[in-house]
Amino acid sequence: MNPDILKERASATFDVDKLTYILDGGQEKTERRREIESMVFSNPDFDEVDPNFLSSSERYDQAVRKSALMIQKMREYGIADPDDIMYYKRCVQRDKPVPLDLHLGMFLPTLLNQATPEQMDRYFMPAWNFEIIGTYAQTEMGHGTHLRGLETTATYDPDTQEFVMNSPTVSSIKWWPGGLGKTSNHAIVLAQLHTLGTCHGLHAFIVPLRDMDTHQPLPGVVVGDIGPKFGFQEVDNGFLKLEHVRIPRENMLMKYSKVEPDGTYVKPPSAKLTYGTMVFIRAYIVADSGRSLSKAATIAVRYSVVRHQSEIRPGQPEPQILEYQTQQYKLFPILATAYAYTFVGQYMTKTYQRISGDISEGNFSELPELHALTAGLKAFTTWGASAAIEVCRMSCGGHGFSRCSALPDIYVNFTPSCTYEGENTVMMLQTARYLVKSYQQAKAGQRLSGTVAYLNDTGARRVQPQPVSARPVVADVNDLSGLVEIYKLRASILVELAAKSIQQELQRRKRQEEAWNNSAIDLVRASDAHCHYVVVKLFSDKLGEVGDAAIHSVLSTLALLYALHGITNNSGDFLQAGLLSVPQMRQISTSVKELLSGLRPNAVALVDAFDFNDKTLNSVLGRYDGNVYENMFEWARSSPLNATEVHESFHKYLKPLRSKL
Amino acid sequence: MNPDILKERASATFDVDKLTYILDGGQEKTERRREIESMVFSNPDFDEVDPNFLSSSERYDQAVRKSALMIQKMREYGIADPDDIMYYKRCVQRDKPVPLDLHLGMFLPTLLNQATPEQMDRYFMPAWNFEIIGTYAQTEMGHGTHLRGLETTATYDPDTQEFVMNSPTVSSIKWWPGGLGKTSNHAIVLAQLHTLGTCHGLHAFIVPLRDMDTHQPLPGVVVGDIGPKFGFQEVDNGFLKLEHVRIPRENMLMKYSKVEPDGTYVKPPSAKLTYGTMVFIRAYIVADSGRSLSKAATIAVRYSVVRHQSEIRPGQPEPQILEYQTQQYKLFPILATAYAYTFVGQYMTKTYQRISGDISEGNFSELPELHALTAGLKAFTTWGASAAIEVCRMSCGGHGFSRCSALPDIYVNFTPSCTYEGENTVMMLQTARYLVKSYQQAKAGQRLSGTVAYLNDTGARRVQPQPVSARPVVADVNDLSGLVEIYKLRASILVELAAKSIQQELQRRKRQEEAWNNSAIDLVRASDAHCHYVVVKLFSDKLGEVGDAAIHSVLSTLALLYALHGITNNSGDFLQAGLLSVPQMRQISTSVKELLSGLRPNAVALVDAFDFNDKTLNSVLGRYDGNVYENMFEWARSSPLNATEVHESFHKYLKPLRSKL
Repeated sequence: MNPDILKERASATFDVDKLTYILDGGQEKTERRREIESMVFSNPDFDEVDPNFLSSSERYDQAVRKSALMIQKMREYGIADPDDIMYYKRCVQRDKPVPLDLHLGMFLPTLLNQATPEQMDRYFMPAWNFEIIGTYAQTEMGHGTHLRGLETTATYDPDTQEFVMNSPTVSSIKWWPGGLGKTSNHAIVLAQLHTLGTCHGLHAFIVPLRDMDTHQPLPGVVVGDIGPKFGFQEVDNGFLKLEHVRIPRENMLMKYSKVEPDGTYVKPPSAKLTYGTMVFIRAYIVADSGRSLSKAATIAVRYSVVRHQSEIRPGQPEPQILEYQTQQYKLFPILATAYAYTFVGQYMTKTYQRISGDISEGNFSELPELHALTAGLKAFTTWGASAAIEVCRMSCGGHGFSRCSALPDIYVNFTPSCTYEGENTVMMLQTARYLVKSYQQAKAGQRLSGTVAYLNDTGARRVQPQPVSARPVVADVNDLSGLVEIYKLRASILVELAAKSIQQELQRRKRQEEAWNNSAIDLVRASDAHCHYVVVKLFSDKLGEVGDAAIHSVLSTLALLYALHGITNNSGDFLQAGLLSVPQMRQISTSVKELLSGLRPNAVALVDAFDFNDKTLNSVLGRYDGNVYENMFEWARSSPLNATEVHESFHKYLKPLRSKL
Repeated sequence: MNPDILKERASATFDVDKLTYILDGGQEKTERRREIESMVFSNPDFDEVDPNFLSSSERYDQAVRKSALMIQKMREYGIADPDDIMYYKRCVQRDKPVPLDLHLGMFLPTLLNQATPEQMDRYFMPAWNFEIIGTYAQTEMGHGTHLRGLETTATYDPDTQEFVMNSPTVSSIKWWPGGLGKTSNHAIVLAQLHTLGTCHGLHAFIVPLRDMDTHQPLPGVVVGDIGPKFGFQEVDNGFLKLEHVRIPRENMLMKYSKVEPDGTYVKPPSAKLTYGTMVFIRAYIVADSGRSLSKAATIAVRYSVVRHQSEIRPGQPEPQILEYQTQQYKLFPILATAYAYTFVGQYMTKTYQRISGDISEGNFSELPELHALTAGLKAFTTWGASAAIEVCRMSCGGHGFSRCSALPDIYVNFTPSCTYEGENTVMMLQTARYLVKSYQQAKAGQRLSGTVAYLNDTGARRVQPQPVSARPVVADVNDLSGLVEIYKLRASILVELAAKSIQQELQRRKRQEEAWNNSAIDLVRASDAHCHYVVVKLFSDKLGEVGDAAIHSVLSTLALLYALHGITNNSGDFLQAGLLSVPQMRQISTSVKELLSGLRPNAVALVDAFDFNDKTLNSVLGRYDGNVYENMFEWARSSPLNATEVHESFHKYLKPLRSKL
């Protein structure tokens, strides 16, 4: 064990395990997770070659091998509890996306939700047993988030009782679905349903893609891999061009809407049924923002206590780089953010579970708010985590660029979440739509509840035209509840400003849609402020659940740092609205510095509490034992360019150059 | 040609070629550049397989092949003018770093600067003719920016008149030098010189690494590739462990300092001689910030007029995504930034050329300021460009993640510049040191000149404790010269705040070094504000050189957008210091929106003016003809996973899974 990191652990003021239990949601969960981790990591069959040393084809091959082995082992051990499956998958995949993710995460669940009993009989068990391997083919080359624009058609032919599936243009080629390129032999294809001369919009169809025996693509099916990407290098994200492929009428997923044999279309009972899945996935992404950022923070903080560099006092030994105020200022607010997002993720998951019972019983009353909240928080946390992961990487100097740090891989596998499952700017505008609507309802006298309840007061409160430092809104800038209050007021003011911008545009005789587009900057800003308020509030609320005094104390410090750092980064908003005075802004700068010093002794303990196994983290810089340099050397020596001492290019190109003088 | 992009070009209000001449530094330069581009790109020998389709060994191989060919061709055509060489290299390498970069960019120049005439005779021509291929081995596993901490030793043995080169620890292993892993047979090694029992600090030594004939590593030389990285995938960044390797005394570069045969050490005449190179390289990096960001902006803007998505007005065709205010708000300030950095790069290069004559004559008077300015601007522009490239990538939705967009490659090859040649935070603090020193000199009555001249007024000016909206500092927020003024005042105030923070720490009886470290956040903030002021000022100055009215008009719009957008992102600073009033902040928000609309018709023309050849850009999304989708399909089909219809992993792992039920 590296002596620096030992010393750090000795300086912790709280019991690390107890904080881990809070993060996992209970001691039993932590124990079960660790049990599964040791089960997987002690099995040498799950060892892998560092994917960074492999070609794209070899990476894909290794991922498929490990997934197949995992399925066998989980069958063997009878692992069936959803949490257990998640723990097991994470260990095996080491948090990397893999080719079978969409089979397990989208194909099977979509069957469960949208297949008729007859369809379940035909498809579910073969899919469960991996005879059928499926994916979910929604996005096309020309359309992502805007689903209505999808171009693939499913045209019903009553004569043969078949659908003709077709990709009418280049831009209609299905593009991006994971596992589509090489792995799947079936896909659930989203297509515009045409029957009896009418288009009824998007519906889902099961389309066989490859021969069940030879795995060769079927006639009319042009399928393949979309080529190398930023991240997701194990996954065969694919393209699919359907050339008038005929499938039986029974392959349309008909639990809700139907096409009768004669071509008559039967509408679904409610359009809101698909909402639930989106909300669930976005809530999951919020939790993943916390998880990915926690990993990056773990690596950067551990490395920053092992790395010594430069000098603070001349003549003294080189200090750990975490002694530098600038390094603390980079990493501690990120550490606080990782905790904040983790707690928000917990809240979202719990809330979803709480109301999903209502949803399945047809009670959608809480869904619109949750839908708006998950959209915005998905964008807020993925943008925040994505940028912060890069700060962690760059805080490790040159070695952060090495693939052995794992930081590049964390980034490239995480950053796509800013785009998939709803492009972030579009998500922010969806939340804004809900906020503006709520604001208008409040103005019209309706009483709002939930996270937007603060908009009830917008009538009573007047937007302050000037900073009024004489009468500050908060008396003590280090009082978290006061800060929650001013975050709330800031959100309220920015929602009002956005609503007024739309109003002004309308008064200038702009159409509603143009008025909206011409206010989009303000709308995104309002959503951002709303989400920021929610995160600060949920972090503050979480403190109320923490009984252990030592942990309460350190988490309170983190929460305060999160809130104050957010204010310094958005100080214009708070000053402009008169929520803080200029002297208070100065106090905040001083407080932030004090909080950084205060957190310093607990920095390593706070990342240890995330409890990432070294194999999950897979980072030479972030090793638990802190033995960075010797392991970096060993890693480098095993890299592919070192397979021979002399690369053949020397004989082919460099030596001949001499004779050509 | 895509009709959308044709329409965009028709709406331009200025002559694109004339703007290209301004960016290139003159019409002749543009013409010569285009001539060389067509020479290289018409030669099929320079064609390449998309590196994203290759393994790391194949990528390295292709890069060496093309470099060797380039050297032959340049010899053949007698290309020797520095600009011509730069143009030629860029075309061949398509802006990617390659294994021979350090031979040409560091090994040869270091010989020129530091070798004695005898050493020149021995080494220069063999190196020029590629018998000797060298690199520059400075950074070690344990030390990067902090050079004094380097551990490699060169111990003089008077008995044999040799230096013993040694890597005493794991952390002393040379790490990162480009071309060190596989390509070079020599290295200039920086090591701590010990002679007659005394250490005289870092000196440079020529160390043979590999057998000239077989290319096998020499005895005691442990050398290899450091493994895969984020970017630089063509380059064999290497490690070098020296195990008591003996080299003749004559291998120390002795133009300035010397070791006599008896071991006597002779000091160099001036320590400032190495300054010049650093300044030159950092000035080059500033220019590259502009270039890399221009490429990213070109891709994102062109794609944003080809891509149609969603709806602004229901029932209307899907608009180009550049019609959305949020998309303009992402991209146009970045476009303005790309222009700003390009002009700053031009200024830095010119200034360096102007004073490099003085430097070689031993006149260093302007060097400290230029050194401080390049350090800060290197950090300011690389951070800014790095973040902005990612915004460009994400503004392209899902396709920005595909390697065919080129955006991931631009990012990973550019972002290392935040760390190499001086880690950015360290650079900011170096600039801050100069600023604080200048501030103290001004306080002491000394008259400052150059970019810090504004600090002369800090005595007279009082930091405003409160926003004083009644008497605004600028009358018209759309007047660029007024904005330059308030950027200057902001810098001045933040330098003063940082200096006062140090003062306060000292008054609390902190040591000088601790006071500095405890003020580091404020110091970085002051440097950032100083650099921001310089960039706004240089952009504004550049307008004065532009005669063409149409171009002057569009560049003025960009400059104003750059300045106002910077204010909205740092509004707290301007409000806190009373430099702008709250109503003025509102006016600025409105102005920014108007500037976005105003730039819309010229967006494509402004990126066309950067004049990147399609082969240089190498982006399916950024193609000049706008034919994105069909080319994306073609690119994907040629990717390696599509070499066979059925991947072998199906037979190996997936099919067997069925039988194991």
